[in-house]
Amino acid sequence: MGRARLITLTTDFGSRDWFVGTVKGVIHAIEPRAAIIDLTHEVAPGDIRAAAFTLAASFRFFPAGTVHVAVVDPGVGGARRALAVQTQKYFFVGPDNGVLSWALRREGIRAVHALEDSTFFLKPVSRTFHGRDIFAPVAARLCQGIPIKKLGPSLSDYVRLDWPEPRALSHGLRGEVVYIDRFGNAITNIAVANLPRERALEVFLTGKKVCPLAQTYGSVPAGQPVAVRGSSGFLELAINGGNAARKLRIHVGASVLVVRRRR
Amino acid sequence: MGRARLITLTTDFGSRDWFVGTVKGVIHAIEPRAAIIDLTHEVAPGDIRAAAFTLAASFRFFPAGTVHVAVVDPGVGGARRALAVQTQKYFFVGPDNGVLSWALRREGIRAVHALEDSTFFLKPVSRTFHGRDIFAPVAARLCQGIPIKKLGPSLSDYVRLDWPEPRALSHGLRGEVVYIDRFGNAITNIAVANLPRERALEVFLTGKKVCPLAQTYGSVPAGQPVAVRGSSGFLELAINGGNAARKLRIHVGASVLVVRRRR
Amino acid sequence: MGRARLITLTTDFGSRDWFVGTVKGVIHAIEPRAAIIDLTHEVAPGDIRAAAFTLAASFRFFPAGTVHVAVVDPGVGGARRALAVQTQKYFFVGPDNGVLSWALRREGIRAVHALEDSTFFLKPVSRTFHGRDIFAPVAARLCQGIPIKKLGPSLSDYVRLDWPEPRALSHGLRGEVVYIDRFGNAITNIAVANLPRERALEVFLTGKKVCPLAQTYGSVPAGQPVAVRGSSGFLELAINGGNAARKLRIHVGASVLVVRRRR
Repeated sequence: MGRARLITLTTDFGSRDWFVGTVKGVIHAIEPRAAIIDLTHEVAPGDIRAAAFTLAASFRFFPAGTVHVAVVDPGVGGARRALAVQTQKYFFVGPDNGVLSWALRREGIRAVHALEDSTFFLKPVSRTFHGRDIFAPVAARLCQGIPIKKLGPSLSDYVRLDWPEPRALSHGLRGEVVYIDRFGNAITNIAVANLPRERALEVFLTGKKVCPLAQTYGSVPAGQPVAVRGSSGFLELAINGGNAARKLRIHVGASVLVVRRRR
Repeated sequence: MGRARLITLTTDFGSRDWFVGTVKGVIHAIEPRAAIIDLTHEVAPGDIRAAAFTLAASFRFFPAGTVHVAVVDPGVGGARRALAVQTQKYFFVGPDNGVLSWALRREGIRAVHALEDSTFFLKPVSRTFHGRDIFAPVAARLCQGIPIKKLGPSLSDYVRLDWPEPRALSHGLRGEVVYIDRFGNAITNIAVANLPRERALEVFLTGKKVCPLAQTYGSVPAGQPVAVRGSSGFLELAINGGNAARKLRIHVGASVLVVRRRR
Repeated sequence: MGRARLITLTTDFGSRDWFVGTVKGVIHAIEPRAAIIDLTHEVAPGDIRAAAFTLAASFRFFPAGTVHVAVVDPGVGGARRALAVQTQKYFFVGPDNGVLSWALRREGIRAVHALEDSTFFLKPVSRTFHGRDIFAPVAARLCQGIPIKKLGPSLSDYVRLDWPEPRALSHGLRGEVVYIDRFGNAITNIAVANLPRERALEVFLTGKKVCPLAQTYGSVPAGQPVAVRGSSGFLELAINGGNAARKLRIHVGASVLVVRRRR
């Protein structure tokens, strides 16, 4: 594994307060050479699934050896475990509540350890801010090259969020919306790689025909809906120059159907 | 003092415009090795007390030698002085309007200097953006190790914001809310270290009983109010999984009473 | 040209999702020594003019050799070209839709090249996220010192946004508002350097007298409008301690007149 001194952060801490800044201060105090990259801190408070998708959509664009930290942690201070996971290319650190699990779905897992050796924590450990007191110092240590097994006992498993697999139908695929981005684009669970290639496709939203599958947002007139092969690897519903989620009232969980166009 | 090449920024500049970016450009042009960490730029415009609390809650999580810059500066271009302060571990830079004063309350002060030697400023100095033209280049110089006394004349004092001390009562402590965070948690001026330890405690908000003091947010059922020992070192009122400030209509300045529970 | 390993980013990607983070991951994977500075990611979706002004107001505060990347790109995946431009001090990278053009207005242009050699792109190139797949890796290469001509064919011109030049009148100058900042300050196209110096000036907004030109925001009582020589080099309308755009209902494009005060 390469030795990028890179740490990414995905949290619901927001940018209004000092929470993210102190996490970075703790990391720098341990490993001044670490480069820290924010994925986002604007996950809705407690929205573990949005954070899990964020991490899954982005972790593989980072160099080998990157330490990915995700802290959306409504159970902080309670009984939930804290984890570090080593895969073939990366490290992942966060609470054991599923927030890491979508990123880990297709990764070759090498080791899973509970964070239990308090030698590596900031003292005293608060009951409400493990991002600063546990996850930040542990990430800094992994960035320095400490063996993951030093952090605590090996675990045989971790909490996995249910991933809604799309269903193959005789005439197409049925899936659902899993994430709405800042542009109002609705990202589905239908992998681009699984879309039928041979024919023109049409997309239905909650049973109503919405739009064709096209190459780019600009393939339809301004203000019109369009489905594209999204940059995160999933089918995506958009409006050219507009906000699809708002205009078409799309929410996470909305049903999406992709069918071959009738000639 | 150590030589972290670290600068933190706390401002009300927001993230919509180019203000923070240009501050960082000016710092990098002088000291390319500086690492710059944002505490926040989302302080409400002109809210000196919120910025002062932000800095006070976070500066000590940074390595020795860090230069902390805070610029909430409604009097920019007017008669207010500009300051650099050296303490035992850190440097602080900002306008002399109290924004630094809560962080400095318990620090051992070594030197206080007015920023008056324009050699160290960006030229020409604008009348409306001293963050870029004065505070950024001065912070970069301190980061490089320039002696603080070169920046301008020594001062015997600086502007201090009034800190509302909690009052000890026969049956508990009376304090007030000093900060509302992005989760809607209400942080008080009652230091965790000063809470009575021997008995169970109850918290009253503006005279009405609200909640028990507990270990974690999850110590009460979802949707219920709870007081916890907050990670910034102060008693904090929260709602498990919710927004206490919104639901309980808590504002900065609201009265908080902590009393021993009757048996 | 100096060799700052500095890259700035100006986009409408927002901070809610993983878009900016993945752009940074791609840059770091190619050039781990790059320092990346956000100008802003909060440009309103598709607002090319706001991004162009942001870049124009800030690029010159960065050290020589900085690579400035601006991606507000409603035509992504369509026919618009992608550009790299070398000036006497800087590099600029972005779509050829005008977003770079206001920064380039007064720069000495050395070379303009289309980004066509896909050797330098991330593979596969998506149709909807060229910020990550084309502009980020190209910026990282320029930061490493690759000659700009390797990126693609030389171009004789690029798309220029119309810049609204103010008009000289017998009694003053007529201009317009070109940008509203987070404080509600209205920045005009009237360069501070072009303001008449010899006399006191008054400012009219859409034909109505609004305020005097003064030295600082605090030159007028709190709540009162004031015009100042803004830090971006243009005349700016503000309210001392308030939000001018909201209170005076100023929009981009509003007419502004500066006249010598009658004695």
